[in-house]
Amino acid sequence: MKTLRVGMIGSGFMGRAHSNALHSANMFMNMGVKLEPTIVSGLPKAEVKSFAKQFGWLEATDNWKDIVKRDDIDIVFVLTPGNLHCENVVAACNAGKHVICEKPLANTVAEAQKMVAAAKKNKVINMIGFTYRRLAAVNLAKKMIEKGKLGEIYHYRGLYLQDWIADPEFPLVWRLQKKLTGSGALGDIGAHTMDMAENLLGPITEVCGMVKTFITERPLMAESTGLSAKGAKKKGKVTVDDAAIIIGKFKNGALGTWEASRFAVGNRNGHTFEINGSKGSLKFDLQDLNRLHYWDNTKPQAEQGWTNILVTEPVHEYVNNWWPPGHIIGWEHSFVHQLADFVKCVVKKKPATPDFAHGLHNQKLLDGVLTSSKTKRWVRIR
Amino acid sequence: MKTLRVGMIGSGFMGRAHSNALHSANMFMNMGVKLEPTIVSGLPKAEVKSFAKQFGWLEATDNWKDIVKRDDIDIVFVLTPGNLHCENVVAACNAGKHVICEKPLANTVAEAQKMVAAAKKNKVINMIGFTYRRLAAVNLAKKMIEKGKLGEIYHYRGLYLQDWIADPEFPLVWRLQKKLTGSGALGDIGAHTMDMAENLLGPITEVCGMVKTFITERPLMAESTGLSAKGAKKKGKVTVDDAAIIIGKFKNGALGTWEASRFAVGNRNGHTFEINGSKGSLKFDLQDLNRLHYWDNTKPQAEQGWTNILVTEPVHEYVNNWWPPGHIIGWEHSFVHQLADFVKCVVKKKPATPDFAHGLHNQKLLDGVLTSSKTKRWVRIR
Amino acid sequence: MKTLRVGMIGSGFMGRAHSNALHSANMFMNMGVKLEPTIVSGLPKAEVKSFAKQFGWLEATDNWKDIVKRDDIDIVFVLTPGNLHCENVVAACNAGKHVICEKPLANTVAEAQKMVAAAKKNKVINMIGFTYRRLAAVNLAKKMIEKGKLGEIYHYRGLYLQDWIADPEFPLVWRLQKKLTGSGALGDIGAHTMDMAENLLGPITEVCGMVKTFITERPLMAESTGLSAKGAKKKGKVTVDDAAIIIGKFKNGALGTWEASRFAVGNRNGHTFEINGSKGSLKFDLQDLNRLHYWDNTKPQAEQGWTNILVTEPVHEYVNNWWPPGHIIGWEHSFVHQLADFVKCVVKKKPATPDFAHGLHNQKLLDGVLTSSKTKRWVRIR
Amino acid sequence: MKTLRVGMIGSGFMGRAHSNALHSANMFMNMGVKLEPTIVSGLPKAEVKSFAKQFGWLEATDNWKDIVKRDDIDIVFVLTPGNLHCENVVAACNAGKHVICEKPLANTVAEAQKMVAAAKKNKVINMIGFTYRRLAAVNLAKKMIEKGKLGEIYHYRGLYLQDWIADPEFPLVWRLQKKLTGSGALGDIGAHTMDMAENLLGPITEVCGMVKTFITERPLMAESTGLSAKGAKKKGKVTVDDAAIIIGKFKNGALGTWEASRFAVGNRNGHTFEINGSKGSLKFDLQDLNRLHYWDNTKPQAEQGWTNILVTEPVHEYVNNWWPPGHIIGWEHSFVHQLADFVKCVVKKKPATPDFAHGLHNQKLLDGVLTSSKTKRWVRIR
Repeated sequence: MKTLRVGMIGSGFMGRAHSNALHSANMFMNMGVKLEPTIVSGLPKAEVKSFAKQFGWLEATDNWKDIVKRDDIDIVFVLTPGNLHCENVVAACNAGKHVICEKPLANTVAEAQKMVAAAKKNKVINMIGFTYRRLAAVNLAKKMIEKGKLGEIYHYRGLYLQDWIADPEFPLVWRLQKKLTGSGALGDIGAHTMDMAENLLGPITEVCGMVKTFITERPLMAESTGLSAKGAKKKGKVTVDDAAIIIGKFKNGALGTWEASRFAVGNRNGHTFEINGSKGSLKFDLQDLNRLHYWDNTKPQAEQGWTNILVTEPVHEYVNNWWPPGHIIGWEHSFVHQLADFVKCVVKKKPATPDFAHGLHNQKLLDGVLTSSKTKRWVRIR
Repeated sequence: MKTLRVGMIGSGFMGRAHSNALHSANMFMNMGVKLEPTIVSGLPKAEVKSFAKQFGWLEATDNWKDIVKRDDIDIVFVLTPGNLHCENVVAACNAGKHVICEKPLANTVAEAQKMVAAAKKNKVINMIGFTYRRLAAVNLAKKMIEKGKLGEIYHYRGLYLQDWIADPEFPLVWRLQKKLTGSGALGDIGAHTMDMAENLLGPITEVCGMVKTFITERPLMAESTGLSAKGAKKKGKVTVDDAAIIIGKFKNGALGTWEASRFAVGNRNGHTFEINGSKGSLKFDLQDLNRLHYWDNTKPQAEQGWTNILVTEPVHEYVNNWWPPGHIIGWEHSFVHQLADFVKCVVKKKPATPDFAHGLHNQKLLDGVLTSSKTKRWVRIR
Repeated sequence: MKTLRVGMIGSGFMGRAHSNALHSANMFMNMGVKLEPTIVSGLPKAEVKSFAKQFGWLEATDNWKDIVKRDDIDIVFVLTPGNLHCENVVAACNAGKHVICEKPLANTVAEAQKMVAAAKKNKVINMIGFTYRRLAAVNLAKKMIEKGKLGEIYHYRGLYLQDWIADPEFPLVWRLQKKLTGSGALGDIGAHTMDMAENLLGPITEVCGMVKTFITERPLMAESTGLSAKGAKKKGKVTVDDAAIIIGKFKNGALGTWEASRFAVGNRNGHTFEINGSKGSLKFDLQDLNRLHYWDNTKPQAEQGWTNILVTEPVHEYVNNWWPPGHIIGWEHSFVHQLADFVKCVVKKKPATPDFAHGLHNQKLLDGVLTSSKTKRWVRIR
Repeated sequence: MKTLRVGMIGSGFMGRAHSNALHSANMFMNMGVKLEPTIVSGLPKAEVKSFAKQFGWLEATDNWKDIVKRDDIDIVFVLTPGNLHCENVVAACNAGKHVICEKPLANTVAEAQKMVAAAKKNKVINMIGFTYRRLAAVNLAKKMIEKGKLGEIYHYRGLYLQDWIADPEFPLVWRLQKKLTGSGALGDIGAHTMDMAENLLGPITEVCGMVKTFITERPLMAESTGLSAKGAKKKGKVTVDDAAIIIGKFKNGALGTWEASRFAVGNRNGHTFEINGSKGSLKFDLQDLNRLHYWDNTKPQAEQGWTNILVTEPVHEYVNNWWPPGHIIGWEHSFVHQLADFVKCVVKKKPATPDFAHGLHNQKLLDGVLTSSKTKRWVRIR
């Protein structure tokens, strides 16, 4: 069986998820090729070495360019903070690597455009990590919509609610600093809920929104240790949004509402959507990701209701690679599915979806919301 | 419009529910006759008078025989503790009254047999108050089973769980004294869960069970006030069961399990059932009584799941007398439906269901469980 | 016991609910006075007569002025379409009657202002029928917020979703005609979700929203029969909104989102809210109205979660007038609670809440949303 | 880091789960040692070779004795059908290997006793694969009970419901043949629900149960292919139970009920329990395995309810090795946790739990149920 060699830039939370995806894809996804976890980069050197040993990478480096310049690497994962994506990705594309890049694609539209151009110029297979498109329940939802089971669509209602910084004493981590991360809840999780909407219903053409920072100053972190310094005296300015509320319109005529918040206490990772159409409706919750709720409006009235589909049947895509019906899978499995789909595109030399162009469009949506929040007007997305 | 005059023996918790049923049935149930709340009996006299005024009864008495002997009374409700049912009901039947009697029908099989005989001899319309048969969701379940939507039935799983006496300091009320009430959780709520099973699946032919009293002594109540004496020094013996666990077989080949408990902390009034058949399954919970959960095993595998039917549509029996879809009704509405069904039988001179004979059979089931608990063997029900 | 005499203007769906409330309040709410269902008005005469007989009203009329002009009437219910509220209410106030008026208060801000003035001038107790404030679960939510259990509030998320006109062949009933009803989903159910928000969190100061009519023409109804003419050839223009999506800000700094729709298939009567605060969160769904979901963020982390409170305990306001714990109540009970609260205010000569001034403010919110939808800008509410 | 070498006997469904566990434990469980997937056995040779390549095993064999006789193997997984467990395990123990054996431990009590003796004589660390003890939610439940949070325990209610053979045309696979598998639903999944009960509440002392085979003949399978032959003409006798219903008593005075079925349509893998104690209650469902439902009966009455704990917090054992809060894990993770716990015992030379003696006791419970079903009497467990 042919082997594809993988290099991974980044060894944090996302590095763990993508490492697991690589090993699991080899075991469970019948890709027709074998992936080799060749080299990983991160900082500091001792940590990335230890990471490599733990997660089965053959080599480790503290210089990401070591990965890009190697001839034997086929695929690169870019998992760095948003401000580094552009440089990492453009270099990898120029070196002819196929690239998966985490979302949001970049911190600005301009950067995102460069990345799209680099991928295009070098004709590399490229994908942006809107992982949740690869959940089995979401896959089923998309198929049902495509088959017309929902009829004409009237409403999309998307939430991505978290609560990990609701405590005012939570420190000023990199995700709260604009120069590193671009935006806050909006770019981190709002990006997901708006991508999910476009994944399922097609383009959003106009948005109106507002972002807000509830806690404007937070304890600085101890630089040397990287650990949080809860209760520390010295504070720094929070330069990103804590929450975003958005209304908008789809090209197909449907109305949309979205909310992204890191202050929605009681919602650890509550990515939910509800879609209402003339023939039926769908509901989903990431914290219960093995289920899809379906209202079939064409059934006899006496038996209509929300059907709670446990998406673990052999007929359900992705999950049929795993366990028997009723044996649920976890959050990280969507990374495995995503990787397998990407690899199949690499093997077949076919474009992957969602690619960097999708990422650029998503970036424009986020920008539109920020603009709307400043101007207090609707913004058209082109 | 013709008027039927009602006499009610008993003015406690059940008296409130049946009084409400009478007024609501007049307003909402289109019975074709008007019910008059003519006379209610209870003790002491002052209390029953006050009750009558509050609940719209024209007259009140402290002697239940005043009701039975009146010529102008058409219908009698018997709502007394179990040890009085037989005397009340036989007298009412002999006076030619149509009778609704609360469950369980009696404290012994012998008493129940006398009551059946009295009703038969006097050709009065008679009904036992297995009110939960009149819930809209249960009505829908029954129709679906009758239509064959569940195919061959394999399992019935019935629970009636409460927790109101889990506190050892809860006093020795009448419901904990065998001479007044016959049995404990078994007769009070086990009667309901076993009746529901037979309502939906037909006769139970064999049972094996066990009853247990967790707290064997409790504070005596202050006789004079009727109030509980939590923490009182003097204790008396609990002479009924706190819980019953039961397995059994249906005539149709299905297996059944039941549990009745007053010690199931976290379940205030948890009357639930699940039924599994070859073509589908059903689930119900009294605390969520406007809903029926249905699994249609004939649907395409990709869309199978539990459908949560909100039973408030115009096509659903009973509820179509009330509000628009999505406007839920409460526990007491089942008494309204029961009364309307009974009155229609009285008007048409047709037998009502469930009648005293059903009550007698239910009594035999309860007796069978008690016998089984003593002998530690299975008991056949005839 | 003293008697208060009630006149009711309107004998449709709301007439049934308020009639039931009157009788039930007498039975269950311990008001200290007795309400007499004295006279009801409606059209045509035959129908209102039949209605009066069915729902226990002593007299019926086809002229609402007959009610207002009578000296013996203490309380008037105004249940007509929105375009008639102003005339009915002003006349009743001028005649010194205490008034409950259904929502929205009027079709325009100007009318609403007249009504507030009339009530004030005549010093009558007045209430607007935001009935859902009287649900036991909502009452509990309000108390918890007032006690500070949620800490600082960050988010309100309100939906009122229905689906009764999603079918394009549904006819052009009065609720779809602006001259009769003022607005569509916005005024009918958006009014409720925005009132609920202000009930729980206080004033909304700024809104930005959009309304949309998905189906712009519908079959005309057969005037003579009043019945729908599904499939009729002749169509008329829908002059109100089918759905509204709204974002906004509260005076207390919280963000709010709202949606009102009659096209949200799968939601028969889905009035829900979620509130997130620094110390805790709450969730509610009208279709499951006996429950309140509470996240206590001050509990040990290992045991945090959404607690599903069945609001049927003796310590819960309103429900303690009804049945034992676990015996749920229905949608119409909130009308009973509302009436009892109103009557207590009448007896004590104390202002009722929410009064017409609240209704006027609500009207301004609705107007603000319509303005925003036209101008595509945020609108400040004064 | 030290390496422990693993041999695995069996390469079917369980082989996939245990292979995944090995790789994942290395990545995520911080065991302090590295596991090497050294050799796997299975039939036929070509298949096990392919399996080894896919799941990362260094060597493959079609003779399980090749594993046991190797000196360099430290740990053996026994994953064969029940009739082979005894021979496999005794040989592995006698060769000084530490052993994890799948459940039920054996097909008879006599075999189980031999296995316990072999482990004891050879002083090897041994564990029976009651994997569900290693779910994070179950771990939390156990800790809460041990801390006394439930007070005195009154009830255990355990179900393990599946529906994979409800179709009469499902073929006669090995799990339906007594000589291979010992018993049917009882041994396969009833073993789990009864073990879970003892895991949480301690010994069961007496049982009374009934087993039933609903479909007594099924299509034979095509021997050569191993594939099912749905619809085949030739049928064979089903020699195991399809369902078991059981009542019983715990040493601590609690009552228990259990049900195991492969005919509970709508339940793919429904392993649930509810426990009621004087101070609180717990509920769990394997199909929603990241959650534990807790009723705290010591809270103020107004706020009591079932708390839905999402068991993904850093303070929750096992899950803290995986992802941030709200990122759920899957069914197979319990195998990873189980393996890590076992390996830690091997490293520390401490006995593992549950060991073969627990497996033997579980076997006696199953035997007791079968005896009770025949004699129609209660059976005491010693």
